[in-house]
Amino acid sequence: MDLTKARVEEVKDLKSEDAKWVKIQKVFYKDPNGKARDWEFASRQTRIEGSDIDGVGILAILEKPTGPEILLQRQFRPPVNGVVIEFPAGLLDKNETAEQCAERELLEETGYVGKAFHSSPIMFCDPGFCNTNLKLVQVSIDLTDPRNINPNQQLEDGEFIENFTVPLKEFPEKMNEFAEQGYILDARVQNIAAGIIVARKYSL
Amino acid sequence: MDLTKARVEEVKDLKSEDAKWVKIQKVFYKDPNGKARDWEFASRQTRIEGSDIDGVGILAILEKPTGPEILLQRQFRPPVNGVVIEFPAGLLDKNETAEQCAERELLEETGYVGKAFHSSPIMFCDPGFCNTNLKLVQVSIDLTDPRNINPNQQLEDGEFIENFTVPLKEFPEKMNEFAEQGYILDARVQNIAAGIIVARKYSL
Repeated sequence: MDLTKARVEEVKDLKSEDAKWVKIQKVFYKDPNGKARDWEFASRQTRIEGSDIDGVGILAILEKPTGPEILLQRQFRPPVNGVVIEFPAGLLDKNETAEQCAERELLEETGYVGKAFHSSPIMFCDPGFCNTNLKLVQVSIDLTDPRNINPNQQLEDGEFIENFTVPLKEFPEKMNEFAEQGYILDARVQNIAAGIIVARKYSL
Repeated sequence: MDLTKARVEEVKDLKSEDAKWVKIQKVFYKDPNGKARDWEFASRQTRIEGSDIDGVGILAILEKPTGPEILLQRQFRPPVNGVVIEFPAGLLDKNETAEQCAERELLEETGYVGKAFHSSPIMFCDPGFCNTNLKLVQVSIDLTDPRNINPNQQLEDGEFIENFTVPLKEFPEKMNEFAEQGYILDARVQNIAAGIIVARKYSL
């Protein structure tokens, strides 16, 4: 499979009544001085009723004998017309915790059996524009587990995902290389790389 | 001003023809196997024609005698009905580079005169859901510049932003405290904190 063969052919504006996944909402609010104002934003139509998150991102660091490596994906994303460097990720199913979602999505998208050991607070992707959010769930993957020797993806129809790892020490530099090669960067990945750069510079 | 006095009163679904800032689009694409598929996503109506980015986030680290401090903001964001911990940020004006935008927005939102010295590759906030994107621009602020002694915000009507700094060494822990206190976290800030945690754990 060659992800770069995917391509956008046409983009059309869609009427809200024809949309199944996305909606536009208007919020009427009082500002800190009590004045009435309004604001437009975009939402997913898929958030599970009663849930306060849309989904999870998965931060998995593989402890290899040669050093730690971070698990990344290449995925063609139609909205941005390109192959994006992302973390494994997915939307919550009904009655699922963030940790269960992370373990399920990791298995489906990468074939790895992992164990969630830390979840971030809820974080919002672009809170002036939309209300989409996630928890970043850290998952450990035991590479000595026989199930993790030859992991097999269990992708759904229409999913095209390639998994790969990069040495954690080179991760920020690799992200710059990916951008130069024409890959598109997910902010949630690139900002972790930026945090590593800040930590190095200031010896944090 | 007490940002926590702001509150959402009502949220309504909006018809696409009544929306001025957000739109829903449908993209028709060929998958990597050549099969025709489609995907819905949300876009800003405000991206400048000919520009490939919506705006910038601003990473400013203040070099104080007591140690480096990271510049953050509290801002009430109607889409998420809460006060969000963010970086200074803003949308590009016409004929503006990312660096010019960062210096202008920094001055407007914080009063600081800064100098952009590094821009990240373009990164996308939530590329399965929308095409909104930004560059993270690093800006230096000379605290010995007389203009930076008592910086004054130049906010527009309807903008309510409080600026503050936290010591860079405590930044990841402070983010967790903010979440516990009921503040909402912007993923672009929280993931830099997560990157610092990863760098510490693995001595990167």
